[in-house]
Amino acid sequence: MVVVMSPDATDEDVAHVVEKVEAVGGEAFVSKGVVRTIIGLVGDIESFHHLNLRTLPGVADVHRISDPYKLVSRQHHAERSTVWVGPQGAQVPIGPDTFTFMAGPCAVETPEQTLAAAHMARSAGATILRGGAFKPRTSPYAFQGLGLAGLRILADVRAATGLPIVTEVVDARDVPVVAEHADMLQVGTRNMANFGLLQAVGDAGKPVLLKRGMTATIEEWLMAAEYIAQRGNLDVVLCERGIRTFEPSTRNTLDISAVPVVQATSHLPIIVDPSHAAGRKDLVVPLSRAAIAVGADGIIVDVHPTPETALCDGPQALLGNDLRELATAVRRLPPVVGRVDAGERIRTA
Amino acid sequence: MVVVMSPDATDEDVAHVVEKVEAVGGEAFVSKGVVRTIIGLVGDIESFHHLNLRTLPGVADVHRISDPYKLVSRQHHAERSTVWVGPQGAQVPIGPDTFTFMAGPCAVETPEQTLAAAHMARSAGATILRGGAFKPRTSPYAFQGLGLAGLRILADVRAATGLPIVTEVVDARDVPVVAEHADMLQVGTRNMANFGLLQAVGDAGKPVLLKRGMTATIEEWLMAAEYIAQRGNLDVVLCERGIRTFEPSTRNTLDISAVPVVQATSHLPIIVDPSHAAGRKDLVVPLSRAAIAVGADGIIVDVHPTPETALCDGPQALLGNDLRELATAVRRLPPVVGRVDAGERIRTA
Amino acid sequence: MVVVMSPDATDEDVAHVVEKVEAVGGEAFVSKGVVRTIIGLVGDIESFHHLNLRTLPGVADVHRISDPYKLVSRQHHAERSTVWVGPQGAQVPIGPDTFTFMAGPCAVETPEQTLAAAHMARSAGATILRGGAFKPRTSPYAFQGLGLAGLRILADVRAATGLPIVTEVVDARDVPVVAEHADMLQVGTRNMANFGLLQAVGDAGKPVLLKRGMTATIEEWLMAAEYIAQRGNLDVVLCERGIRTFEPSTRNTLDISAVPVVQATSHLPIIVDPSHAAGRKDLVVPLSRAAIAVGADGIIVDVHPTPETALCDGPQALLGNDLRELATAVRRLPPVVGRVDAGERIRTA
Amino acid sequence: MVVVMSPDATDEDVAHVVEKVEAVGGEAFVSKGVVRTIIGLVGDIESFHHLNLRTLPGVADVHRISDPYKLVSRQHHAERSTVWVGPQGAQVPIGPDTFTFMAGPCAVETPEQTLAAAHMARSAGATILRGGAFKPRTSPYAFQGLGLAGLRILADVRAATGLPIVTEVVDARDVPVVAEHADMLQVGTRNMANFGLLQAVGDAGKPVLLKRGMTATIEEWLMAAEYIAQRGNLDVVLCERGIRTFEPSTRNTLDISAVPVVQATSHLPIIVDPSHAAGRKDLVVPLSRAAIAVGADGIIVDVHPTPETALCDGPQALLGNDLRELATAVRRLPPVVGRVDAGERIRTA
Repeated sequence: MVVVMSPDATDEDVAHVVEKVEAVGGEAFVSKGVVRTIIGLVGDIESFHHLNLRTLPGVADVHRISDPYKLVSRQHHAERSTVWVGPQGAQVPIGPDTFTFMAGPCAVETPEQTLAAAHMARSAGATILRGGAFKPRTSPYAFQGLGLAGLRILADVRAATGLPIVTEVVDARDVPVVAEHADMLQVGTRNMANFGLLQAVGDAGKPVLLKRGMTATIEEWLMAAEYIAQRGNLDVVLCERGIRTFEPSTRNTLDISAVPVVQATSHLPIIVDPSHAAGRKDLVVPLSRAAIAVGADGIIVDVHPTPETALCDGPQALLGNDLRELATAVRRLPPVVGRVDAGERIRTA
Repeated sequence: MVVVMSPDATDEDVAHVVEKVEAVGGEAFVSKGVVRTIIGLVGDIESFHHLNLRTLPGVADVHRISDPYKLVSRQHHAERSTVWVGPQGAQVPIGPDTFTFMAGPCAVETPEQTLAAAHMARSAGATILRGGAFKPRTSPYAFQGLGLAGLRILADVRAATGLPIVTEVVDARDVPVVAEHADMLQVGTRNMANFGLLQAVGDAGKPVLLKRGMTATIEEWLMAAEYIAQRGNLDVVLCERGIRTFEPSTRNTLDISAVPVVQATSHLPIIVDPSHAAGRKDLVVPLSRAAIAVGADGIIVDVHPTPETALCDGPQALLGNDLRELATAVRRLPPVVGRVDAGERIRTA
Repeated sequence: MVVVMSPDATDEDVAHVVEKVEAVGGEAFVSKGVVRTIIGLVGDIESFHHLNLRTLPGVADVHRISDPYKLVSRQHHAERSTVWVGPQGAQVPIGPDTFTFMAGPCAVETPEQTLAAAHMARSAGATILRGGAFKPRTSPYAFQGLGLAGLRILADVRAATGLPIVTEVVDARDVPVVAEHADMLQVGTRNMANFGLLQAVGDAGKPVLLKRGMTATIEEWLMAAEYIAQRGNLDVVLCERGIRTFEPSTRNTLDISAVPVVQATSHLPIIVDPSHAAGRKDLVVPLSRAAIAVGADGIIVDVHPTPETALCDGPQALLGNDLRELATAVRRLPPVVGRVDAGERIRTA
Repeated sequence: MVVVMSPDATDEDVAHVVEKVEAVGGEAFVSKGVVRTIIGLVGDIESFHHLNLRTLPGVADVHRISDPYKLVSRQHHAERSTVWVGPQGAQVPIGPDTFTFMAGPCAVETPEQTLAAAHMARSAGATILRGGAFKPRTSPYAFQGLGLAGLRILADVRAATGLPIVTEVVDARDVPVVAEHADMLQVGTRNMANFGLLQAVGDAGKPVLLKRGMTATIEEWLMAAEYIAQRGNLDVVLCERGIRTFEPSTRNTLDISAVPVVQATSHLPIIVDPSHAAGRKDLVVPLSRAAIAVGADGIIVDVHPTPETALCDGPQALLGNDLRELATAVRRLPPVVGRVDAGERIRTA
């Protein structure tokens, strides 16, 4: 931690800061510049936070130097992690050596539609099925998902296809029932800072897919992962899904750089959702290719057998030629960047 | 609703759209341009949504023309509303004729600190006390509030000072206990799109202070208010508290224009929180003056008897000279823009 | 300047940084933390820049502590400046004690329109006339201004009304002719980082109105002012005119906090342009009131006798009742915040 | 064009709009909705602009439907263009079938440094050399480039290596001398809306590399290209180089989606600059891979023989292992996405 004094700070002001820091067991190194003095603090950062140094006379600014997250940081855990999704004996990896393709409908609507979408997904090479039973919608008048009935459909489709299920949970009160039916719990972009929900999924004993808040910095996102990890659950996969910017031609701006930035900072796996980032079907294939090439550990894509009847996000769902083109990219590109298909590394023991 | 066809759309594509619209009882007016055709839709918008027009062949774009919110819109409720806060016989108004000053500590820490802050607030002219018992914090290692003990302190301080209480609720499961102790429930910026929480406060039978999501558009914010209103609770006060932009010199950028924009669109009252927008004590007084002058229905400000020991947001809490300067502004400016102090309009019947 | 070493930096890496710094005559203070080492640098910052410290092994980050601007900073020039606009004997002040109201048409179209707008402006209390002869337009197909003919109209209207003129210059090659006709040269938002133009107006011997780039940080804006100041021209007035954000209901988001932030950092005067920020006529009056109350040194507003025939930005031009309401605000609010009308402080000697 | 009337618009208001439109030879199709009326306009859009419809009574909003650019639009020019860079007999293509790798130092510093960088670039597979002689710098105290001397160095290095040169021009007055020495003129991000400069490079008779303004929408960027095209120069290559967002971990956020969005809208080629987007050396290789995979027509990358002595942007320059890794990606990835190396398609006739 570095304390920057203002140009008009007095020697007493500097001494006062040093005294406060030493009182909680820290060390303070003073660098007296021509215009300003800066003080480097060494010791327990948490104890420094309680000093409210920014409120002291003569203090202009306080910079934190270390990462504020610990459990998800790569600092003390240099090797990148692999998260395993699915029942004992059929676990799909998401991690640094593999490429994991997840696909499915934005919302579960009927058993038939969900099964058809699952077959589309599997044919295209997907090894995990996505599908929403609880949908957080901007409008109270929009379709909010089938709820428990949707979870049951997902469980049936899993039984029929063997694909593990990832599905969203939007309320801490629903975590137990979702965890009972799904293989992986998704926390959506609007709930990234819903700390009660983060703690609840941290307690649920299932892997978590944590989407980036559409306006969250990478640091805030990793702090959200830290909330989950702090409850003892380190099986967290991050998902970049676009951030809010001034550019109107895409629903959100896919922050492709977030992938290498996160991988340099955290040991957690990170995947990309090109469908929700773009909101436009014609961009899903090129953005998926970019995600593979940049080094993402997987992608998650919307598919739907009949997008024109979809109750949610039809305009971004793939089918037909587009899906075939995506399947080709998913088969050909990962090997060029040193990845094997996750389907070839399923843990059967 | 307006459907814009792409330049290469065929006559069949246009006919197909018209047919779909008419099948659900709507009317479609076709304007055939030199380059593109546009189709104006008239009828029930909800039924049009289910058509997924954007997925039809030849459709380039679909524009919604009407506001997506209904209950909070000014369209069918031209007169601006007043929300009354406090127990029967001592209700403070927030609305178009008055100016309501709310103040208090960011977090409730001890009975003494809370009472001292309440006295500071009242002396400066505040008529409603703010104070947080449940704190949503970015870091799981930061002070999370006193919880129920904090609510009890607030209730005691209300009894001692007569000031109604507004306090934040962060989890739908806590709504009943918070509603029992407080006069107004605050939904914070991180929870603006926590739809389960919005519905829970909509059911709680107390007025709600709904902060703008730090990255929410005004339309999304009004949709969040609509979630509350849809549960039968129209006593919603909006609070502009800064949005996330690229400018680093302030914690957030206070979107002062949001006040007249909201007032032109919705009948709900709107207040401003200059403390959380700026995150800097030295900006609170000028931004408060701006809020009054732009026509806000109130402001909410952090005060603390000893900011250097505050467990939360000490650097933005006012005291001493700054608070006196604010008190002067709150006394002198509202009359110049045609407002009376809310304290003079307390409803005692 | 503070150098932050990465957690895996070696002692040699630290020694290497210290050696480099000392080689150019600086001092380096090493604070060895538990996880990281930080090094505080004292001495000539320019010489440190040439060291490219960020490229050295073991260096994680380099933080600048001092302001990068010098001439426009308040650090060595604590008293806020006043800029005088107009011919000898009739100079209008823009500075900390006064409030200066500037108004006029977005674009000069005809002598009659310009004169009519000037009369509207003067009647409403304006003491400086704005009007564009050279217009930077996003589309090459839009009206680009009358050029020299427009400058002549402005000069005639000045002769007729006695109002000093501020007008935009968009190309370094036009600076001499604009400086010959106008009393103040405006650099527009799109040219804030056109460094050749900044240097040219710095040499022109007339006061400059420097609009903030719609996506410039306050620091970048002050650096642009520094470019002008470096040529020996300290008569620079800053103009906040809205920044680009994700909010679509206003053309730009007026960053009202920029006013007190700039006033705390720089000695230059700062005014607000509510018309271009909002792009909506109905917001101009409330935003003008906010600008006065926040402590701006002036405002600049679009007026037009017949907005429906305006060749530029008609939808934001005031007239009639709106202009009368603005005139009232301009008369009543400044005294409440301790300002006198600039018209009462014209320098006649 | 679509005119949206406000809910309280009268029949006279609607009739007035229709009348205005018909008076300039347009057709107006009225769709009377339950709440609002919308009017579709057909005819010459330019003439509608002069009507200032937004200022008419009862008009709530006016939506443009067609693209505002014409010459650079794909609407009337469906096939994507190839731009050829270099002297007659040795022209390098940038277009839809090839992948063009450009590299070189951010700034030309000395003949030796430039030649060494050119050799690095060529060895890594680059076919065009970049290098700055005129540098637009945020600080007036930073290195501003060698100017004419730098252009001469570039010309010498071209003679020695055979690589065509792209270099930035920052002032309209310098266009002739830069065009005399370089094969392609670069307009930098800060000058994207410097319309005088755009017109000057439009007249210069050399291909132009137009970087996206760091805060420009794609539409504004294409309008800037239209300024160049309007002068008769259609040899414009667009360059995505990151946009300004709230995320601080990268200097700018690379908007990778811009590549397919532009390719769907305009016939002009588009390349990516990962170095300036990220500002961090460790991200350049992954972002280059993403750019190739998303379908960019080329990339432009900073290389420097000794980044630690670079006078500009040393921290993002590649060398050694990183450059070798990039060379491998540039060789292996383009064929997977259907591209051949531009070096194999040099036009020698």
